[in-house]
Amino acid sequence: MQEILDASQPSDWRTPENKNLLYLDLDSGRVLIELAPAFAPAHVANIRALAKNGYWNGMSINRAQDNFVVQWGDPAQEEKDRKPLGRGAKAKLPAEFARKTKGLPFDRLPDVDGWAPEVGFSGGFPAGRDPAADAAWMAHCYGAVGAGRDMAADSSNGTELYVVIGQSPRQLDRNITVVGRVLQGMELLSVLPRGTGPLGFYEQPSQRTPIKSIRLASEVPKKERVGIEVLRTDTPLFAELVEARRNRRDEWYKHMAGHIDLCNVPLPTRAPPPKPVAEKAKPKPRAKKPRSGAKPAGASKS
Amino acid sequence: MQEILDASQPSDWRTPENKNLLYLDLDSGRVLIELAPAFAPAHVANIRALAKNGYWNGMSINRAQDNFVVQWGDPAQEEKDRKPLGRGAKAKLPAEFARKTKGLPFDRLPDVDGWAPEVGFSGGFPAGRDPAADAAWMAHCYGAVGAGRDMAADSSNGTELYVVIGQSPRQLDRNITVVGRVLQGMELLSVLPRGTGPLGFYEQPSQRTPIKSIRLASEVPKKERVGIEVLRTDTPLFAELVEARRNRRDEWYKHMAGHIDLCNVPLPTRAPPPKPVAEKAKPKPRAKKPRSGAKPAGASKS
Repeated sequence: MQEILDASQPSDWRTPENKNLLYLDLDSGRVLIELAPAFAPAHVANIRALAKNGYWNGMSINRAQDNFVVQWGDPAQEEKDRKPLGRGAKAKLPAEFARKTKGLPFDRLPDVDGWAPEVGFSGGFPAGRDPAADAAWMAHCYGAVGAGRDMAADSSNGTELYVVIGQSPRQLDRNITVVGRVLQGMELLSVLPRGTGPLGFYEQPSQRTPIKSIRLASEVPKKERVGIEVLRTDTPLFAELVEARRNRRDEWYKHMAGHIDLCNVPLPTRAPPPKPVAEKAKPKPRAKKPRSGAKPAGASKS
Repeated sequence: MQEILDASQPSDWRTPENKNLLYLDLDSGRVLIELAPAFAPAHVANIRALAKNGYWNGMSINRAQDNFVVQWGDPAQEEKDRKPLGRGAKAKLPAEFARKTKGLPFDRLPDVDGWAPEVGFSGGFPAGRDPAADAAWMAHCYGAVGAGRDMAADSSNGTELYVVIGQSPRQLDRNITVVGRVLQGMELLSVLPRGTGPLGFYEQPSQRTPIKSIRLASEVPKKERVGIEVLRTDTPLFAELVEARRNRRDEWYKHMAGHIDLCNVPLPTRAPPPKPVAEKAKPKPRAKKPRSGAKPAGASKS
């Protein structure tokens, strides 16, 4: 995989739009989330408004259920105790479990998937598609960010957000609105102590993890922004990378799977390469060494 | 799921044999691992000998790679600095990536799986099977315990053990020897801080998690043993549970998947029901309320 990434061109990478980037700041560091307005426009609009209002600042991560999700939001149990959503944020949104396929890019994987007739990537997000039903949806892979809801399909408003921290709970696909995915900082969420209450909620308020702030990158002063690029999923290079993971060519592997599950495909990110600053600086033509995603090697020490 | 478990009979549960149960004791608590001699007899024999010799006592968890594995063993880099394996433990073992299908129970799932022609459970372990190749193997689901190896297929000896803490890395199936799975205590391993060195190894020895001891339950004084029962996978009740997860009947779900992935099937454990002690004690006929596995509910607060 590293060899393929080393051979990548600047055009193989994309820079997420600042209006689609959330910075979740914890004491332990920053988590970067990319929102997906193509799939959940109403939820994304609400989340942007909530972030602008500083809605989550000073709130907490209230739930960590092993092999499932972490979740944050207003911990108040009673409606009357809840923080007002603020200007421009709606209290009620439509369910956005799936959308029509028209106009949606879809880079299909060649592999079978028991949860969906077709799986692949759309704008960098793992997704499922059912042409017969004219439906496409984001898949609950590791790092997926969704909007918690109650019994009614339209009972989420984007204030309660969860992140998948375990085996992909694909049974949630088409049952809840996915709003985006974590690009960076998963290791800050996945290590949170698991809650011992029902559904992994913490039993004591002191066990919750404080949220310093959740802000839209577009609202953050430029000098505080994090540069990040994400590998495009609609390029020959990405197809090459997927194939290299479907059939591992390195000597460590003795059996080729000839397959990959949607949620096992790595979606690499990197810091943007340094911009040429002056003619005399002789900028290197090659991109800066990318951050590696999940390392493919086995459990060997070497 | 809880309703189904509540209706279970004592015969729906099994008690793992003490010679197949490992207690991994950390400062944070105890992890229970069930070994699978039916799949990896040579590795299990070696692990038993190593545990009897106290081989891992005082060692550490040296690796935690996000969405992949934690791993323990001798952190010494040089062969000459390594701890001797002790009596009855072999330095070299055969690769036990797969076994013949004859004589192996197999409770097949009805679902497609891209990694294997057939998937299901064997003696309580998630497994794949290929009748054409006369091969069966344990699958790398969350909680799977495997034996790290180097480049050669037969380079594992059971001293370096890893546990899957993320999305199932099924590409490792048939490429490395799986020796068992974690029955209880996953949340003690999954929260370990991720290592920042290559492959998630810790860069500083002080970052490692000390191992107090790894012992076979059969070697532990009876009063220190943990009672545990595991739901059998070869019963009508288990088939009913799987079907209830393939098509969720609770009102929260708006879309039925009609499918489940091998690694999404919960494998519940519970403390054994109290034994009747005297006639006058009127023991309750119903089993003690079981510990629930991963809770199926969505990300709702309620």
